[in-house]
Amino acid sequence: MAVGNGALPEFPAINGIRLGITEAGIKTPGRKDLVLIELQEGSTCAGVFTKNAFCAAPVTLSKRHLLTSFFNHQSKVSQSYLLINTGNANAGTGKQGMEDAVASCQSTAGLFSVDIDRVLPFSTGVIGEKLPIEKIQKGLSIAADDLNENHWLRAAEGILTTDTRPKGSVASVQYAGETILINGISKGAGMIKPNMATMLAFVGTDAHIPQSLISELVTELSEISFNRITVDGDTSTNDSCMLFASGASAASEIDVDHEDYPRFKAVLKNVFIELAQAIIRDAEGATKFVPVIVEQAASSQEALDVAYTIAHSPLIKTALFASDPNWGRILAALGRAPIEALDLSRVEIFLGDVRIVNAGEKCADYTEVQGQAVMDCEEITIQIKLGRGEFTETVWTSDLSQDYVKINAEYRT
Amino acid sequence: MAVGNGALPEFPAINGIRLGITEAGIKTPGRKDLVLIELQEGSTCAGVFTKNAFCAAPVTLSKRHLLTSFFNHQSKVSQSYLLINTGNANAGTGKQGMEDAVASCQSTAGLFSVDIDRVLPFSTGVIGEKLPIEKIQKGLSIAADDLNENHWLRAAEGILTTDTRPKGSVASVQYAGETILINGISKGAGMIKPNMATMLAFVGTDAHIPQSLISELVTELSEISFNRITVDGDTSTNDSCMLFASGASAASEIDVDHEDYPRFKAVLKNVFIELAQAIIRDAEGATKFVPVIVEQAASSQEALDVAYTIAHSPLIKTALFASDPNWGRILAALGRAPIEALDLSRVEIFLGDVRIVNAGEKCADYTEVQGQAVMDCEEITIQIKLGRGEFTETVWTSDLSQDYVKINAEYRT
Repeated sequence: MAVGNGALPEFPAINGIRLGITEAGIKTPGRKDLVLIELQEGSTCAGVFTKNAFCAAPVTLSKRHLLTSFFNHQSKVSQSYLLINTGNANAGTGKQGMEDAVASCQSTAGLFSVDIDRVLPFSTGVIGEKLPIEKIQKGLSIAADDLNENHWLRAAEGILTTDTRPKGSVASVQYAGETILINGISKGAGMIKPNMATMLAFVGTDAHIPQSLISELVTELSEISFNRITVDGDTSTNDSCMLFASGASAASEIDVDHEDYPRFKAVLKNVFIELAQAIIRDAEGATKFVPVIVEQAASSQEALDVAYTIAHSPLIKTALFASDPNWGRILAALGRAPIEALDLSRVEIFLGDVRIVNAGEKCADYTEVQGQAVMDCEEITIQIKLGRGEFTETVWTSDLSQDYVKINAEYRT
Repeated sequence: MAVGNGALPEFPAINGIRLGITEAGIKTPGRKDLVLIELQEGSTCAGVFTKNAFCAAPVTLSKRHLLTSFFNHQSKVSQSYLLINTGNANAGTGKQGMEDAVASCQSTAGLFSVDIDRVLPFSTGVIGEKLPIEKIQKGLSIAADDLNENHWLRAAEGILTTDTRPKGSVASVQYAGETILINGISKGAGMIKPNMATMLAFVGTDAHIPQSLISELVTELSEISFNRITVDGDTSTNDSCMLFASGASAASEIDVDHEDYPRFKAVLKNVFIELAQAIIRDAEGATKFVPVIVEQAASSQEALDVAYTIAHSPLIKTALFASDPNWGRILAALGRAPIEALDLSRVEIFLGDVRIVNAGEKCADYTEVQGQAVMDCEEITIQIKLGRGEFTETVWTSDLSQDYVKINAEYRT
């Protein structure tokens, strides 16, 4: 199950970024499970990573390598590599896990004669099992032979685990009279199959973005996209979102003071949001796509606290699955949200365009038929006005279906 | 589904406490839905209530009446009444809801010629629908005629909504050379059927407990019993736990400095915990009963934060349902728990008696067979040692089954 048709865009080639994909045999036979991305010399790159205290070895190592290669330039300037394997998260694997992650980087660095910190490793899959490093090393040379600027679609397929479909977003934008291309791919939210972890997203562009700015951009844009989606509230050990820029376009270096900058940023932001939303539309067992909009909050954090209380409520999520306009559950969840001195007489609740609750009680003119019409759609917006201030936040979530339980329970049967 | 056989104890009569039950027609025909409890003159009574900002009208009114009748003694000293209806929560019903709650108290007060604040109302059931006050008023006189000290079992049945079975706990304890009896009944946690709210618990004793002490006891004991259980994290609008004491036993007034006090309190505490655990064993779709014990925390709050992160994780709860010793999910949930600077190298995780994780990684001698043996039981203890301090907290929860989703989704089909 998934929401919408999930049609993929046509990915254009992006100069300066090549992708190689292979079947290394980590997952079941016949499934792509190793992706190598090459960024040409002079590219910039930054990322955001899971805040889980048990972050996986590749997350620790990627952060370390980013710091020395892209931020502090301790290594030789050269092309750089992102190495992504699926089928094994290399998490909860202790010292051995770090040794394996290092070994995978060493093999890649050796193959291309670059410094080891020019290689950023990413893993996704089963937690707590040893990384099959030999399979990765063997697959690496095949992926290297496969490197090509036209392989974005195959890469989108190669990073999947139990996702039902590949996810991508493409955009182009004029900057200083020249065209800039942006391609993005992402994979599954939530910890999908038992022990399956990890949301991954990779966004590449031929823009010329200074290192300090690309770091700012990936932090700011992931905060309002990937950090605004939730399936089950379970942060994985491997979540990573990377933004990289080859600088191969004819456009001048991106400058925040340039008149075209707001447009460039808006287009890039849209790619981030589309990739994040695609993850929710393909969440485990999802039959509904649900924006939760909290308005009139006293602070941004308060708006988020209320939105997540709604988005994580199993009772609201099962009602969404059942297409049941069960506003009592929204009211009850709002009532337990961690905000001080909520004045019920100012609260309004909308399902889609239909106002259901006003002043803390059911609207006199609300009819069940109105609510049902909204709930029968695949996309259902829950909107809450708190009457406390001027802050708005949006979080995207899915419903809780019997298939969610089935997918997450029946791994071993 | 429910965990264990749920066998009920034999309830003895308790002097000074009479219970009357009837079918008022609020729920489906043939089901008890109105319970009246009479406390003899001189009884003491105190309670704790939901912290939900959208608390129901009867909750607001019960708190108000407790204050004036039992704490500040503004009303005439007389017998007092607890009036409990199921089938309708009288929540999200605004001014009308409060008028109806007041009307139900007025009718009761009139019937027995007592002041209105001598009546405490409790409702549980559908949120957002008008209380059928005429049915309650009509049923009231039948319940009054039914008042009897031997009706605890029928009362345990009368407060149920979609619970699969009645819940009770009884105890007796020697105090100052005399016997004190304690009876308790409770009903369903979680917001069970769509719009169904409310956990209710009523514990009665013939002990003579001063008003200030009974208030302290109900607060302290509900905190470590009813406030330590969670099904889905959804606090209802109507949760209430009441403790009342008729003083009819021959034992002297309870005194915290008496040598028998610790024993009395321990026995009373056990009644609270048994009633709380009974709710979890009968949680929606529950097939497992799961104590989550967090040890070596730096504070009590930290231990609770970790325990609830584990107990609310849909991925852990589906693994419990599947009897899958999926320790990677416990590790990942622990990693996202809201505690500062967790030192992985000190963390240990046990399933039952089996240590699975040590120093943040899988124990070398752990085998899947060991974990599976624990998970195959109906009662599964998850124990976590944080290595940060000396605080321990325990939370009790259930698994997340397909039946949970079914029960909560299929109300309208």
